[in-house]
Amino acid sequence: MKHYFTSHRFPSMLPAIVISIFLICCQTAKMPASDAEREKDFMYQYSIIDALMAGVFDGNLRIGDLKPKGDFGVGTFNKVDGELIMLKGKVFKMSSDGRVKEASDSDSTSAAFVKFFKADTTIYFNEPGLSYEQLQEHLIEKLNANTIYAIKITGSFSSMTTRAASPAKPPYTTLTAHLGEHQKLFNYNNTTGTCVGFLLPPYLARANVPGFHLHYIADDLNAGGHIFKFNTNAVAVEIDFAKGFTIENNTNAAFLNVNLKPDRGAELKKIE
Amino acid sequence: MKHYFTSHRFPSMLPAIVISIFLICCQTAKMPASDAEREKDFMYQYSIIDALMAGVFDGNLRIGDLKPKGDFGVGTFNKVDGELIMLKGKVFKMSSDGRVKEASDSDSTSAAFVKFFKADTTIYFNEPGLSYEQLQEHLIEKLNANTIYAIKITGSFSSMTTRAASPAKPPYTTLTAHLGEHQKLFNYNNTTGTCVGFLLPPYLARANVPGFHLHYIADDLNAGGHIFKFNTNAVAVEIDFAKGFTIENNTNAAFLNVNLKPDRGAELKKIE
Repeated sequence: MKHYFTSHRFPSMLPAIVISIFLICCQTAKMPASDAEREKDFMYQYSIIDALMAGVFDGNLRIGDLKPKGDFGVGTFNKVDGELIMLKGKVFKMSSDGRVKEASDSDSTSAAFVKFFKADTTIYFNEPGLSYEQLQEHLIEKLNANTIYAIKITGSFSSMTTRAASPAKPPYTTLTAHLGEHQKLFNYNNTTGTCVGFLLPPYLARANVPGFHLHYIADDLNAGGHIFKFNTNAVAVEIDFAKGFTIENNTNAAFLNVNLKPDRGAELKKIE
Repeated sequence: MKHYFTSHRFPSMLPAIVISIFLICCQTAKMPASDAEREKDFMYQYSIIDALMAGVFDGNLRIGDLKPKGDFGVGTFNKVDGELIMLKGKVFKMSSDGRVKEASDSDSTSAAFVKFFKADTTIYFNEPGLSYEQLQEHLIEKLNANTIYAIKITGSFSSMTTRAASPAKPPYTTLTAHLGEHQKLFNYNNTTGTCVGFLLPPYLARANVPGFHLHYIADDLNAGGHIFKFNTNAVAVEIDFAKGFTIENNTNAAFLNVNLKPDRGAELKKIE
């Protein structure tokens, strides 16, 4: 009676067993999308910085389709409408009116740089008054110049200066021209939150921003944006190194038609 | 009797059914590695051209582990020992002694650029005497400057000039210095075979070779190498455009220590 295969009781259990095996296997087969991405430990980006610089302000990737690529990162939205911050799987938009809101899955991005964040090491900086530049110098000293790092800085800041762009209207100009007239600056004091972003090697120039590129989001969502400078009170810097990166090309027609030959490195430095 | 679930005959068939479902599902679950890569339609590369240029001549990716990333492409082997040609899933090495042999899965590569090749369009050039430069001009006119293309040229060539590097000995110099002394040139007449490679946009500079980069392999394996020039008899150019690309970083310690700051674009042009 214990040998089910020859038991008369067995046939009645068969549909359940077959369905169970099928469901278990289907689950395994369906896992890949985000789990495979997480396991690979690569950075993922949609479009390239040089296209954004050159005025390709629209993309075809919806926020809902960005989420399976990472749970942490930065970017912007179509029309350069605000700054994108992805944290713990949620995507926020810091608009030029200073408000931070969770973005809709149906919003689209023209450039986004994300990763599944998993800290490989954490460094604590408890001395107050450390500037963004000083923190960068400390980190550059400790880290490798040829490695792709996702950087997460949590803690309190005595001051924080950010920007957020307001949406552009077609026909689009270059990013530099647009920001020159349509970026709002924000100065915060004693804010607690998270800086989200990347430290990238020089060979990613043209595709992304070499060096540091961080966006800020306050715990209470009352502050955010692309970081220009800050002074810390006490912060923890979590560092996650990526084994590689993936770039998905922007399928927007403007991407195909833009001139990507010029080296926009010097121009990029001016607006970062 | 036709309703198997209640049939007495059923229990004897059960193990076979359960095992079949399990195997089918496992197959689906195991598919991702290369099939997911194929479906994604991205280019994949191991390491970057600037690291190779700077003397990072060893990598840690075995040919057996390169194969799930594509079935078509170019590259080199550790120590810059010859030219790598991947065609229809097989990896060949053109050595500096002029011999083309299938590479072992246990060989390693310091730089490889591959894709699962699937032609999106084919262009036929039947006029004889078309040079490599002329063919490039024709293609550049028809193709988009910002798109990543895998290019496969099959047919007969009245002449073909290639090179293959001989292996370097540590301590390594730069690629330019090594090739200056250790590349062999090969001139072939009336050879029939396949040119394998890529046409890449300018924003992939530093990571890869902007423009055309093709290796040759003769049908009879009696010719091959990195292509410098050719003249066609009649050829078919198959063009496969990629939706994006993935770069896996070289984990070799030399990669971490090399200076990747200089722009090696001008130097690269000299040796291509």
